Amino acid sequence: MPDARVGDPACPVVGVVGATGAVGREALAILSGRGHPPGRVVALASARSAGQRVPFGGGEVVVRAVDDDALASCDVVLCCASAEVARRYAPPAVEAGAVVIDNSSAFRAEPGVPLVVPEVNPGALGDARLIANPNCSTILLLTALSPLRRRFGVGRIVVSTYQAVSGAGLEAVEELRVQSLDVLHGRGAMPGVFHEPCAFNVFSHESAVDAATGLNGEEAKMLAESRRVWDEPGLELIPTCVRVPVERAHTQSVLVWLEDPVASEADVLGALEGAPGVEVVEDRAGNRFPTPLGATGDDGVLVGRVRRFGAGVFGLLLSGDQLRKGAALNAVQLMDLALQRRAGVGVGTGAGLADIGR
Amino acid sequence: MPDARVGDPACPVVGVVGATGAVGREALAILSGRGHPPGRVVALASARSAGQRVPFGGGEVVVRAVDDDALASCDVVLCCASAEVARRYAPPAVEAGAVVIDNSSAFRAEPGVPLVVPEVNPGALGDARLIANPNCSTILLLTALSPLRRRFGVGRIVVSTYQAVSGAGLEAVEELRVQSLDVLHGRGAMPGVFHEPCAFNVFSHESAVDAATGLNGEEAKMLAESRRVWDEPGLELIPTCVRVPVERAHTQSVLVWLEDPVASEADVLGALEGAPGVEVVEDRAGNRFPTPLGATGDDGVLVGRVRRFGAGVFGLLLSGDQLRKGAALNAVQLMDLALQRRAGVGVGTGAGLADIGR
Repeated sequence: MPDARVGDPACPVVGVVGATGAVGREALAILSGRGHPPGRVVALASARSAGQRVPFGGGEVVVRAVDDDALASCDVVLCCASAEVARRYAPPAVEAGAVVIDNSSAFRAEPGVPLVVPEVNPGALGDARLIANPNCSTILLLTALSPLRRRFGVGRIVVSTYQAVSGAGLEAVEELRVQSLDVLHGRGAMPGVFHEPCAFNVFSHESAVDAATGLNGEEAKMLAESRRVWDEPGLELIPTCVRVPVERAHTQSVLVWLEDPVASEADVLGALEGAPGVEVVEDRAGNRFPTPLGATGDDGVLVGRVRRFGAGVFGLLLSGDQLRKGAALNAVQLMDLALQRRAGVGVGTGAGLADIGR
Repeated sequence: MPDARVGDPACPVVGVVGATGAVGREALAILSGRGHPPGRVVALASARSAGQRVPFGGGEVVVRAVDDDALASCDVVLCCASAEVARRYAPPAVEAGAVVIDNSSAFRAEPGVPLVVPEVNPGALGDARLIANPNCSTILLLTALSPLRRRFGVGRIVVSTYQAVSGAGLEAVEELRVQSLDVLHGRGAMPGVFHEPCAFNVFSHESAVDAATGLNGEEAKMLAESRRVWDEPGLELIPTCVRVPVERAHTQSVLVWLEDPVASEADVLGALEGAPGVEVVEDRAGNRFPTPLGATGDDGVLVGRVRRFGAGVFGLLLSGDQLRKGAALNAVQLMDLALQRRAGVGVGTGAGLADIGR
């Protein structure tokens, strides 16, 4: 259906798959915030969610069942669903001409599919029509560390995470709320989404633990995806991923070995200040540093508590909204970048957006 | 009042200063659990709390105002109050003949006052009559790492904490509950004890941040006290202390460099299994590892998620009840150890407990 994609290059038809989920809803909010009109946004989800209404701007849009026909009408597809759904629908959507940004882990290790954080490795985008969004923890970590890597070089990274429950979906947020009320009213907490109680508790990430390496799935993703985004297969990253009773926004305690042994705290803060996607929150006198509540709804990754522990060794704390920069926002940024590139490719040919996916 | 201390050496008169506080209440619970009769336990607190009743075993004891006379009737004083209170009351209590175990930071750096974790450096106790209990985070960390240090040697330690709010007292627990209800009912959280909202949030520890080093008070304590307990002034320990919305029990994500480069995960687990004060919780298949809820009310430090990240480099996760092993239990253990030593000193002289403090 080429006609659907001709017209205003600044106003593509955007399909959001998984529109009823935590990341899908956030993607809709970001699209409406950026002025995409409801008539050019297609909210898609499983057949059982079809007919539901989800918020869009001041109003709502009706959710349609995802199928290949619905996707064929889209210039861009933001796939905010499971890896299984992505593997089913992304390839035919690309085949039908769309640019697909996939939030799942389905294609993150696939050689022909670039894995991109716009502030970190935009050049990897190329003219790909299927682009993978890294895992939320990886996006937040690399957005914060890339300015330091560019300026000083980075050796080893040690990171312990404090991850919000919404990374496991909206049911997990509901579970946290229900369990919290239960505990506050003297009742026991009933685990459901998670294998451990999440209210007033902390537990090692719920993803399966590899029997050999001892890494859980989240940690394995951080390691493999950081290596791929930085194109540094030997990167030494030591992750420990932990859930905390926070609704939204992940926090990370990071220790990083810089290759410049004389870098000072001021040098590190200087490299972070003004870096794309980074907001420095550093107030020793007031004891104000990044927090997940402070990062909630914010587009930037908050970075602070910069401490020098020896030659080149720095501690820092970061918080970022994993549904925004860690997922939906990164996807929308990738969409914009891909569309700009395609518009650029089309300059002088008059093809513009109509060229997408050809 | 020497007579008060003569009699049954197994049944000293124990004064608990700060009996209405979080640690004081826990000390009373541990004493009653160990069979100390209510008539030989003196609950002490500020004048404004005098007359209150606090739980003791199945019943209650009446709180008396702390003063030098009240302390003079005690064989042992467990000081579970602020550093200010400790500095005021501990020296005269020692002078009057008591053994004083102080939970505050008042004497932890004082050369003549041993800083002791019974499982770690019992020999440091000597015949001191004023003994300092380390900071809760230090006790938990060193209880877990000392078996590894004994077996393999320890170089660098990197630790990020997930600390329960009760470390800041019972008001902090109340604040977490009230704020949580407020948030769950759509109202804003009102910070009081903490400078940041504590419900559904994570924040860098509330203790003041040193302008020069960037360490907060909790981190500075962990560093200085670990060095002192291990008698290793050059120990390299890199701490990041963070509060999480947990009522009780602290968790720590630890990375430790062992001096034995060929130690395996099985070797490390073997050294932890059966170590005093340690309980191994390690189930990769079931994704069961230490949690603060699992540690709450437990006397041991739960240790698990043992992962080898290279020659001698191991990650682990630990959780411990900071009001028990991290404070009140460690103090009661020190009391028992000090009394045993004094009873030992008295063997053959007939002096026994009556010898305390002479």
